[in-house]
Amino acid sequence: MGLIQPLRWHGRRLDILDQRLLPGEEVWIPCTDEEAVAEAIRGMAVRGAPAIGVAAAYGLALAAGLAAEEAGGDAGRRAARVLDRLDRAARLLAGTRPTAVNLFWALDRVKAKAQETAAALQGEGGGSGGGSTDGQDPARAIAQAVAAEAAAIEAEDRAANREIGRWGSRLLRGVKGIYTHCNTGALATAGYGTALGVIRALHEENPDLHVYAGETRPYLQGSRLTAWELKQENIPFSLCVDAAAGHLMAQGAVEAVVTGADRITANGDVVNKIGTYGLAVLARHHRIPFYVAAPLSTVDMSLADGRSVTIEERPAAEVTHVASVPVAPEGTNVVNPAFDITPASLVTAFITEVGIARPPYEDALRRLTQLEEEGAQRA
Amino acid sequence: MGLIQPLRWHGRRLDILDQRLLPGEEVWIPCTDEEAVAEAIRGMAVRGAPAIGVAAAYGLALAAGLAAEEAGGDAGRRAARVLDRLDRAARLLAGTRPTAVNLFWALDRVKAKAQETAAALQGEGGGSGGGSTDGQDPARAIAQAVAAEAAAIEAEDRAANREIGRWGSRLLRGVKGIYTHCNTGALATAGYGTALGVIRALHEENPDLHVYAGETRPYLQGSRLTAWELKQENIPFSLCVDAAAGHLMAQGAVEAVVTGADRITANGDVVNKIGTYGLAVLARHHRIPFYVAAPLSTVDMSLADGRSVTIEERPAAEVTHVASVPVAPEGTNVVNPAFDITPASLVTAFITEVGIARPPYEDALRRLTQLEEEGAQRA
Repeated sequence: MGLIQPLRWHGRRLDILDQRLLPGEEVWIPCTDEEAVAEAIRGMAVRGAPAIGVAAAYGLALAAGLAAEEAGGDAGRRAARVLDRLDRAARLLAGTRPTAVNLFWALDRVKAKAQETAAALQGEGGGSGGGSTDGQDPARAIAQAVAAEAAAIEAEDRAANREIGRWGSRLLRGVKGIYTHCNTGALATAGYGTALGVIRALHEENPDLHVYAGETRPYLQGSRLTAWELKQENIPFSLCVDAAAGHLMAQGAVEAVVTGADRITANGDVVNKIGTYGLAVLARHHRIPFYVAAPLSTVDMSLADGRSVTIEERPAAEVTHVASVPVAPEGTNVVNPAFDITPASLVTAFITEVGIARPPYEDALRRLTQLEEEGAQRA
Repeated sequence: MGLIQPLRWHGRRLDILDQRLLPGEEVWIPCTDEEAVAEAIRGMAVRGAPAIGVAAAYGLALAAGLAAEEAGGDAGRRAARVLDRLDRAARLLAGTRPTAVNLFWALDRVKAKAQETAAALQGEGGGSGGGSTDGQDPARAIAQAVAAEAAAIEAEDRAANREIGRWGSRLLRGVKGIYTHCNTGALATAGYGTALGVIRALHEENPDLHVYAGETRPYLQGSRLTAWELKQENIPFSLCVDAAAGHLMAQGAVEAVVTGADRITANGDVVNKIGTYGLAVLARHHRIPFYVAAPLSTVDMSLADGRSVTIEERPAAEVTHVASVPVAPEGTNVVNPAFDITPASLVTAFITEVGIARPPYEDALRRLTQLEEEGAQRA
């Protein structure tokens, strides 16, 4: 099989794999502006914290490219129009999903790059100086820098996932039964996956590995997406309803739980797909390790703990309807939180691209973040 | 609204409400022999431990009635044919679902009644004696006794549920947020319900009560059946995915969990719908009481603990398909246990028709069972 990836960048178009139609159909949504990307994120055609971040970055690249084409006036005015459009596009994209921090992280990073590029051009006196922007129109130069930054975020995410897989497979060596939740695979990232990346790497070393995949209601990322990826990779697995996790643990079938994260706060609290918290409680009850695999872009050092994170409430129809078929009486009242918060005290360790974080997490996460920044500076 | 009940007995026909089509359609399956009843139980047109017991009892009534009509020969031979048919019908019905003990309890009780009636008739010298069988054909007398016993089981179950509701509402007085799993309502019993009966009774006293109903994958008894009953009764509730329970508890919305049971062993272990065990672990983690509401017919004193109970594995399609729509890739491997085992140590109390059982359950359940038998003898 070919490499699974949820996004394809074509310079003036971002193709987004419509994950709502998987595993039945493989349909790509062509996005030529930031509106289309925002709609794909909001409607969950693309989901998974890292993939959302990459898609949003490309959304800014589309916005900058269009603004550079459309803007009139002198060089300074044209550059300002591009920056202005980027600001508006970033606000639009930031408003699509409130929980995954990678979204805001990617938007901030791309915007910073645009501003940095604009400042450098201005310093050169509006296009007369040297460097990579030599002789270029500043509006186009900013747009190119934005597109390059989006591509860098994508490439770095894929590389980070490989490293997460490497660290995780070392940590989990010898484990034969592993439980995972939601989809944290190639589809949820730029490719390869976080928790599912760990499982991929572990399976390479240990073909006896058996994966238990929770179906992950209401959106069924487990049955629709994780099962699809595991089948393509020929990794042995059993799909189960989310409520079967406790029974499988009590029977001894599960030796470890690995999930991803939508946001990790400075103290190590984990905001992730609804049900993650219950799995962590069950794992603790059965003395089974509970691991969270995520790139450091998921860590939000600006939040002390999980209490202040906005938990997205999704539409009732996700629960009352399955594949457009109603399964509950009309007008049924629903509570449908998309995420929950797992306190740091229930997490055995974090698996990141620069290493394993163990408690106390406040220190460990800060150390790893510094390590990563130093690595980025060296690179 | 009228009284919700899943079974209607018409003497020569048992109408079974096809719960697979709820809440969309209200279709009744007319059953005129034990085969049709067995098929309805096996296919889960009727489900819920007490309702299965009542349906099976009426299945024996249909079998006995047909045998009495069809059997030829002298009185003794005709009576033997009825008993023989009852034996076969009981084996057929016992083979439909392995877990709910009410099924076996009801079959044994009806068979015992048939044998007792046959013995009494034989003692009278084949129909010449007095009593209720005076002058009757013994085959018909047995069939009538069997039908009367099935009706008694139904009436007693409904009465027991009212008593469970009364005890439960006293125990839970003042609780404002209650979480329940699966459907334990009128549809799961002869009427009124066990855990949902407690909720009905509690709501009468406290209109502020809010119910959180877990959808209960894979069969969606929560969204399809519990939501349907709660709406009909105007009891305020929110439907949620099963994996949201932990989050709701952490937020303080849930003050107590109440479930039913398919089988309770002598030590107080609870075999119930998959996911019950996880709820009990979560309740313990949050120091929330976890109650099990069930009639004493659910207690299986012949089993020391839950380890020896057969856990039914249901078809993969229940997980891979929802409302006949595939939601997982073709050929996906599934583990689909219908039940799990909650150890007695996680149960705060049992709510039965003769009172509340508190630990140690070995003693408490035995005492309540004796109380019930004494009550039955007095009645």
